[in-house]
Amino acid sequence: MSKKRLVYLPLGGAGEVGMNCYVYGYGPKNKERFIVVDLGVTFPDMETSPGVDLIFPDIQWLEERRDRIEAIFVTHAHEDHIGAVGHLWNRLRVPVYARAFTAHLGRMKMEDHGADPEAMKTVSAWPEAVEAGPFKVHFLPVSHSIPESAGLVIDTPAGRVVHTGDFKLDETPVLGDPFDPKLWAEVAKPGVQALVCDSTNVFSRHEGRSEMSVGPEIAKLVASASGMVVATTFASNIARLKTLAEAGQKAGRSVCLLGRAMRRMVTAGIESGILSDFPNTISPEDAVSIPRENLMLIVTGSQGERRAASAQLSRGKYLGLTMKEGDLFLFSSKTIPGNEHGVIRIMNNFSEMGVDIVDDSTGLYHVSGHANGPDLDRVHKIMAPRMVIPMHGEHRMLREHAKLAATNGIASMVAVNGTMVDLSGDEPVVAEFVETGRTYLDGKVKIGAMDGVVRDRIRMALNGHVIATLILEGDEPLGDPWIDVMGLAELGSSKASLVEVLEEDVGQYLQRASNKSLADDDKLETEIRKIIRKSAQDEIGKKPEVTVIVSRLT
Amino acid sequence: MSKKRLVYLPLGGAGEVGMNCYVYGYGPKNKERFIVVDLGVTFPDMETSPGVDLIFPDIQWLEERRDRIEAIFVTHAHEDHIGAVGHLWNRLRVPVYARAFTAHLGRMKMEDHGADPEAMKTVSAWPEAVEAGPFKVHFLPVSHSIPESAGLVIDTPAGRVVHTGDFKLDETPVLGDPFDPKLWAEVAKPGVQALVCDSTNVFSRHEGRSEMSVGPEIAKLVASASGMVVATTFASNIARLKTLAEAGQKAGRSVCLLGRAMRRMVTAGIESGILSDFPNTISPEDAVSIPRENLMLIVTGSQGERRAASAQLSRGKYLGLTMKEGDLFLFSSKTIPGNEHGVIRIMNNFSEMGVDIVDDSTGLYHVSGHANGPDLDRVHKIMAPRMVIPMHGEHRMLREHAKLAATNGIASMVAVNGTMVDLSGDEPVVAEFVETGRTYLDGKVKIGAMDGVVRDRIRMALNGHVIATLILEGDEPLGDPWIDVMGLAELGSSKASLVEVLEEDVGQYLQRASNKSLADDDKLETEIRKIIRKSAQDEIGKKPEVTVIVSRLT
Repeated sequence: MSKKRLVYLPLGGAGEVGMNCYVYGYGPKNKERFIVVDLGVTFPDMETSPGVDLIFPDIQWLEERRDRIEAIFVTHAHEDHIGAVGHLWNRLRVPVYARAFTAHLGRMKMEDHGADPEAMKTVSAWPEAVEAGPFKVHFLPVSHSIPESAGLVIDTPAGRVVHTGDFKLDETPVLGDPFDPKLWAEVAKPGVQALVCDSTNVFSRHEGRSEMSVGPEIAKLVASASGMVVATTFASNIARLKTLAEAGQKAGRSVCLLGRAMRRMVTAGIESGILSDFPNTISPEDAVSIPRENLMLIVTGSQGERRAASAQLSRGKYLGLTMKEGDLFLFSSKTIPGNEHGVIRIMNNFSEMGVDIVDDSTGLYHVSGHANGPDLDRVHKIMAPRMVIPMHGEHRMLREHAKLAATNGIASMVAVNGTMVDLSGDEPVVAEFVETGRTYLDGKVKIGAMDGVVRDRIRMALNGHVIATLILEGDEPLGDPWIDVMGLAELGSSKASLVEVLEEDVGQYLQRASNKSLADDDKLETEIRKIIRKSAQDEIGKKPEVTVIVSRLT
Repeated sequence: MSKKRLVYLPLGGAGEVGMNCYVYGYGPKNKERFIVVDLGVTFPDMETSPGVDLIFPDIQWLEERRDRIEAIFVTHAHEDHIGAVGHLWNRLRVPVYARAFTAHLGRMKMEDHGADPEAMKTVSAWPEAVEAGPFKVHFLPVSHSIPESAGLVIDTPAGRVVHTGDFKLDETPVLGDPFDPKLWAEVAKPGVQALVCDSTNVFSRHEGRSEMSVGPEIAKLVASASGMVVATTFASNIARLKTLAEAGQKAGRSVCLLGRAMRRMVTAGIESGILSDFPNTISPEDAVSIPRENLMLIVTGSQGERRAASAQLSRGKYLGLTMKEGDLFLFSSKTIPGNEHGVIRIMNNFSEMGVDIVDDSTGLYHVSGHANGPDLDRVHKIMAPRMVIPMHGEHRMLREHAKLAATNGIASMVAVNGTMVDLSGDEPVVAEFVETGRTYLDGKVKIGAMDGVVRDRIRMALNGHVIATLILEGDEPLGDPWIDVMGLAELGSSKASLVEVLEEDVGQYLQRASNKSLADDDKLETEIRKIIRKSAQDEIGKKPEVTVIVSRLT
C-alpha cells in the first residue's frame, strides 16, 4: 500500500487577491480524499476582460475528481470567498459548511443560481467540528471586515493544518468575536503541521488598528457636519455600518440605508442573529422629507461602481434624494487598486456640486480587515507551525510572507495557483503542478478565459472591425465588393473615404485574381484580409480586425 | 469704442490633470488678441478610449481665431504641456516660445510631425521678456521634476498675471534654478492682478520636500545592494537620473541607461547645456559583460508601460540583460492613478524572478514635483494677488485651492475647461462659456472624441459583434441568411450553436415578412437587428452590436 500524504492545492487566490479556492487532500497518491476551502470570484475589468460579468476559478480538475470530494468549507461571506458557490455548486454537488451568517447569505446565492440551498449547512464555531472523510474541520472565529469570519483548524492523520482565511488581530472588533490569544494558543498546543496564512497586508509595517478606533473619529466628523452626511463603505462591513449609523444617531440624525446590498446585508445580520442593536433606520421615501441637516445616508458604492448609490447620487437625483453645496460625503473605505478612476470620477462629480469629500487619506476613518506584517509575525509565533504556506495575495506578497517565515526560522514555500504541495513532512515539497485557469461568466454563459472570445473583443476595441462582403456567381465576382466598418475613422489621411478606398482596393484585387484563387474561399478570405489590413494601415495607420463574407450563387 | 478686457480661458487642464492648454486674451470683447500657454496631451485608457494613441485638446475655437493669436508659450517639456505642439502647430502657425531645454525637445517634436522647427524660439529667463501683441511675457524659473520649468509673468495693460505652470518650492533642486523667494518678491512687487496657479498637490498637507533629500537615501540603498541594481523614474526627471547615476557611481557600479526616452532626455540635457556633470554611462552591449554586482541600470517604465524597459526586463531578457534572484529593482517614482495594474504586474513578475522590489511606500526614494498645500499658501502670500485662479487639477483640487484662497482673503473662482473668465476687475467674473472637447489621434488620423468611432469600439468590446448577411433577388430572399459573430460565445445556454439559432430566427422572420418590409432596406435592417438582439439575449444573455448587410441582385 502506498504511503498516505497530506496535500495543499490552490486553484485560485495564490498569486492574486481574489477568486479564492483552496483544496486539501489526504490519502495515497492519486487516491486522496479532498475538501475544498472557499469558492470565490474575482471581478472583470475593461483592460483584460471587457463585457465579462464575473470570473470564477476553473474547477475542471475538481469536477473530474468529484467523487473524491467530501465537502466545501466557506470561511466567510466576501464575494472572493463565497461568490462562485451558487454558480458552480451543481458541478460538484457536495455539502457546503459555513457559520450562520455566511450560510444565510450562501443559501440566498444557491437559490439565485439554481443550486440546492439545503446543501448549505450551518455549523458552530470551535470547539465543534465537522467530520469530512479523513478531515476534521473546526471553524475558528477570527475578526475581519465582515461578521463571523473563520479560520479553519483542519485535523488530519498527518497533523493539524490552520488555514487562517482572511483575518486580523482585533481585540475590540465592534461586532463579533474579538481576537482571543488564549484560544489561539489552545489551537496551537497539540502542534501545528502547517499554517496556511493570509498575506494581503504583509507589506504594512505597523501593527493593525482596531475597528473600534474609527468610531470616535467618525462620530466627531458627523457631529461637526452642517448639511446632509452621506457615508459609504463595503455593505458587508456591518461593524462599520453600525459605527456609521451610531454616529448619525448620536448627532441627532435620521439614518437611511441606500442600495440593495446595504439593506440585504443588514437584514442578513438581523436574521442570522448576529445584529441585535443596529440603530433604527428610515426608508428613502421618508428620508426625502427630513431636513438635510438631520439626515445621514449610508450608501453602497465605495469602489466607484457605476450603478451603486454613491455613483447615482454623484450624477444627480437618486430615489428623490440629491446632494448639494455644504453636504458631506465620507469614504469610510480604501480604494482597491484598479478602482481609482471610478472613485475619482465620483469625487469630482461631488466637487462640482459643492459637496465636501472626506476620504481615508488621513487614516482616521477606515481600518483594514487584514493582519499587517507585525501581526503575521505574532501569529507565526503563537502557532509555531512546522511550516508556513502564504496564501491570499499577489506573488510579491506571498514572497514577502515567506521571507517573514524564514526570519522566524520556519520552513516555507511560495506556492501559486496550480502548485500542489505535500505538507506531510518536515518542510513543504512540490508534489505536482496542476493546470488552472479562469472561467468567465459572460451574460448567461460560462466561457474559458482562453477560448478567444474575449481576445476578439479586445482586438475589436483596439483595432476596429471591417466587414467585406462579396458575391460570386460560379467563380466570377457578381457586382462590386461591399465594405462595412465599425469603430474606425470615416476619412483616411488622404481625406478619402476609408470605405471607398477599401472597396476600390478589394475590387481591383478581384479583377486581377486568378480563377484558382476565386474558386477557393479560404484563399480568397486570406488575400482580402491582407489587402484590407494593408490599405487601412496606409490610410489610417491601423490594422483592423477583418471579417470576409463570401456568398456563392450556384 | 468698447471697453478692453483681460480674459483667461482654459481649453484643457482645468478639471483634469493633463492636456494643458490655456488662453489669455486682451482687447475689446470679441476682438481680443490671444496668447496660448502650453499645448499638451493626455493619455488614452482601455475604459474610455481603447485603441486611441494620444489625446489632444480640441483647438477648433483657437483655429477659428488664428489671426488673433500672437504666440504660444510652453512652460516646460512634460508631455501634458508640450506633447501636442508638433501635432497641432500646422493648424495655428504662430511662433512658439520656450526656454532652451524645452525648445530643444520641442524642435524634435516639430520635426517628427511635419511642423516647422524654426517656429520654436528659445528665450532666456526673467528679466528678459517676449513682446506678443498687448502681452509682455517673462519666463520665471521654477523648480519642477524636469529641467528649466518656468512660470510665466504676463504683463498686460490690465495688470500682471502670474501663470505658475507646474512648480514646487525647492531651494536645493539638484539641477537647475533653486526657488528664490527674493526673485518672487520682486515679481510680486508691482502688484499681481491674477495668480493662475498649479493645484495638483493641494491636498498634501505637509510642506513639499526637496529633490536633494532623496539623494542620501538612494545612495544608502544602492550601496547596500549585493546583486544588480535597476532603478526607474520618469526619463524627463533628469535631476533624479543624476541622483541615481551618482549613487551607482559612488557604489563603484557602472551605470547604463536603458530605454529610448532615457537616452534622448540625457542627450537633450547635454546638448542644451544644462547637464555638464552627468556620470559616465556605458552602453547596453558593454553592460552585458559587467558582473551584476558592479552594474546599475536606470530604465524607462516607471508607470508600468508595457513596451518600456522595466516591463521588458520583467518579462525576461532585454538587450541581453536579465534580472534574477538577489537583484534589486527601485521604483524612484509614484504610480499615477490608473496605472496601478501595469505597475503591480511588473512587481509580481520581478517577484517571481526573486528580485527584491523597493517602491515609494516608505517615502524615502521619491519626492513630488508639485507644490503642496502649505507651499501654495506661501505662494499666495508672496504674490498677494488680487485674485487666484486655480488650474492644473481635477475639479476637487481646483475647489480645494479656491477654498485656500478664500482662507487667505483672496478672490477666487473654479473655472473648468471652457469657462472664459474676465480677470480685469476686482474679482474673477465669468465672461462666457466656450465649447471644448478632445481630439483623438487614432493611428494616423485625428478624430473627435464624440464622433462615435470609439463609442462603437467600446460597444463591440462589451457586447460582441454579430454580422447578418442576406441576399435578395428583387424582393425575394435568395437562399438563407448568413450569420457571423466576433467576440461572442459559440454555444448558448441551450447548448445550441448561437450562429445556428440566429440564422434560424432571422430565416423565419424573412419567411413571414411582408413584401413591403422586404422592399425597404432600412426597415429590414431594423427588424433583423431587433430579432438578433432579442435571440442573443435569450440564448447567451447579451445584446450584441449588429451589422446587417443586405445585398440586392437586380
